[in-house]
Amino acid sequence: MKYQEFFENAVSSLKTEKRYRIFADLERQAGKFPRAIWRADNGLEREILVWCSNDYLGMGQHPDVIAAMSDTAQKMGAGAGGTRNISGTNRPLVELEMELADLHHKEAALAFTSGFVSNEAAISTIAKLLPDCLILSDQLNHASMIAGVKSSGVSKQVFRHNDVEHLEELLAAAGKERAKLIVFESVYSMDGDIAPIEKICDLADKYNAMTYIDEVHAVGMYGPRGAGIAEREGLMDRIDVIEGTLAKAFGTLGGYITGNSAIIDSVRSYAPGFIFTTAMPPSIAAAARTSVQHLKNSQSERDGQQRQAAQTKKILSGAGLPVMPSETHIVPVFVGDPDLCKKASDMLLEMHGIYIQPINYPTVPRGTERLRITPTPFHDDHLVDGLCNALQDVWERLDLPKIEPGSFYDLKCLEEQQVFNAAGG
Amino acid sequence: MKYQEFFENAVSSLKTEKRYRIFADLERQAGKFPRAIWRADNGLEREILVWCSNDYLGMGQHPDVIAAMSDTAQKMGAGAGGTRNISGTNRPLVELEMELADLHHKEAALAFTSGFVSNEAAISTIAKLLPDCLILSDQLNHASMIAGVKSSGVSKQVFRHNDVEHLEELLAAAGKERAKLIVFESVYSMDGDIAPIEKICDLADKYNAMTYIDEVHAVGMYGPRGAGIAEREGLMDRIDVIEGTLAKAFGTLGGYITGNSAIIDSVRSYAPGFIFTTAMPPSIAAAARTSVQHLKNSQSERDGQQRQAAQTKKILSGAGLPVMPSETHIVPVFVGDPDLCKKASDMLLEMHGIYIQPINYPTVPRGTERLRITPTPFHDDHLVDGLCNALQDVWERLDLPKIEPGSFYDLKCLEEQQVFNAAGG
Repeated sequence: MKYQEFFENAVSSLKTEKRYRIFADLERQAGKFPRAIWRADNGLEREILVWCSNDYLGMGQHPDVIAAMSDTAQKMGAGAGGTRNISGTNRPLVELEMELADLHHKEAALAFTSGFVSNEAAISTIAKLLPDCLILSDQLNHASMIAGVKSSGVSKQVFRHNDVEHLEELLAAAGKERAKLIVFESVYSMDGDIAPIEKICDLADKYNAMTYIDEVHAVGMYGPRGAGIAEREGLMDRIDVIEGTLAKAFGTLGGYITGNSAIIDSVRSYAPGFIFTTAMPPSIAAAARTSVQHLKNSQSERDGQQRQAAQTKKILSGAGLPVMPSETHIVPVFVGDPDLCKKASDMLLEMHGIYIQPINYPTVPRGTERLRITPTPFHDDHLVDGLCNALQDVWERLDLPKIEPGSFYDLKCLEEQQVFNAAGG
Repeated sequence: MKYQEFFENAVSSLKTEKRYRIFADLERQAGKFPRAIWRADNGLEREILVWCSNDYLGMGQHPDVIAAMSDTAQKMGAGAGGTRNISGTNRPLVELEMELADLHHKEAALAFTSGFVSNEAAISTIAKLLPDCLILSDQLNHASMIAGVKSSGVSKQVFRHNDVEHLEELLAAAGKERAKLIVFESVYSMDGDIAPIEKICDLADKYNAMTYIDEVHAVGMYGPRGAGIAEREGLMDRIDVIEGTLAKAFGTLGGYITGNSAIIDSVRSYAPGFIFTTAMPPSIAAAARTSVQHLKNSQSERDGQQRQAAQTKKILSGAGLPVMPSETHIVPVFVGDPDLCKKASDMLLEMHGIYIQPINYPTVPRGTERLRITPTPFHDDHLVDGLCNALQDVWERLDLPKIEPGSFYDLKCLEEQQVFNAAGG
């Protein structure tokens, strides 16, 4: 057994497949977002524009958020000092959880140091506590939800993405008496489409199932108080557990769940991923709470993001770039090949100072590789024009396909094409 | 299917078993550690002394660490803004990883937002990449390591705690050709005992196994540069993967692994719990690095901790309190009953302003419930005397058993007693 070989081969196979990831070394600069300093492999530094940040509203640089973090660190120190149970529960964290419960109009909330852990811990614990539970999981659910489903050890069935008819078939087959947990997202972050939440809730009522929604790509950004798509559609009270993140639109770190007291208390009391881990530092909790409070009361960031996302779609599509249809702030541009996707990304960075990470398998299915652009309120019209010019230049140099100006790239055409090819066409 | 009932029952069964956990709501105060403000259920606030913090050296309140956090937040903002791959890799985090690799004299390091996730992600990924891997896991390994073993899906065998003869039996039975990963801790945090690291490394060599050590309760505190027990014993180069935390002696947040480049790159490239999660904020990374750097060069915190831990053991044992034997800075005091353990803890807090969380099942085996005391350099002799007086008062009020002054409580007696009882004695 030569151990080293297996690790070397694991890495080199990624390189062969053009899936090896090199992380861009960035220095964010508060007050200058979306500008950042990029440190290239040769050690030279250069100012670039970030077009793929999940700091969707630029709240990570909001002066009140930074002040809350800095002031709280000065006052209470750097870390929490323990797990939640063993000296780690701090006042700002308790206040953050009250704020989050209020945001979603739920009885209680529980914060975690990441959204990944919140999904993994909550889904697995809830499913395990129900007798013979069946999880019904959307086909495109995030890796963290899949981790939760796996780690629960209960049976699961995957329904086709956003397909309520398929979901109904599976619910009907399981029967009303069996415990059933439907887990899905509101905004799917790689395509930017939205789940049919109301229809899923109707089915949950009809077949007596529990509902668990991941709103990580929606909280802060949708609904009059920024509680997400379920708030916008008046459906929060019909969902048993709403999961969200503090690390994207809220600009800080961590994840959370909200729901009724018994559910939240159960996860709090039974989930190893919650119990046996150090609590969030008070400074992070204070910063997150400040951000949540701000976005409860301020609509301008949401309006700015929607305006600039629409502008980006319009300008890129107008130039014949293959923008994929999206109902949200996410602007995917189709490439369809991992190597070209990486090359386009490298070229944008090196030649145009524009940073958009290539999105390859396993984050998206093979053959659907893309650039995923996330305009924020800080990406103004001038920057959008610059982005469009840069993309056009790269598209030309790499001879990437364009589509009819003003139209959107339809992934379904690709799927039909693949079916056609598979059939020997 | 009445869902609510199952969650209500899950919570009430914990209450019946006296295992329901209520988190003390604390406000840490930088510069005044171990003092903190405790907010009781009635909303009234009161200054208390924390005697169970995992901020083992008080680094969470070190002015340089706080300044690094605060300055970096001011300069770079509150969050990282994305996963490591998608715009979230920040300069302070890259520098932190170089610092950690240097600390352990390894080629590379990888930081996570928690030690729990670092264990879960690293153990599962490493084991999965090896063909037909067998994990050999110490019986008392932490929940996060067990999560990693489970989520790997490979076969495992549990060896009796720190029992190298049993480990050798299992290794010999598996044979030299089979891939084998030995996972263990250096300091076991509930008893304060230390693994026979050298013997385990000898066995790993003899039977060609990989070694994975968790040093979370040792990093910062042992070894001339604070790299842990393996450093103290000159064994770092004999261990394949060293895992540590930034959230205990380093006083901040997060976990990490170090090892050779191929192993670290494999975990970086294959672990969902690493790939699909937002990166650590630059402010946390900068604070953690400052703390690591400080403790590389400063021995005074380590000396102070060892001195006060020894003093605490001496004074409590001298008063006949059942201190359990410990080779480290951890001072467990035996109670042996969950209800009495909780009562002792409540009484200490309410009557003496001393906060020591009860440690009950599942953190420790039933019947071995204890108070776990962690003296830091900031718990001076005067505070130790106060602690001893308070414990004696509580021991008297609750009629808890004492032992001969100057001796230590031997858990083995309890085990023999249990065997005796089980045999009908």
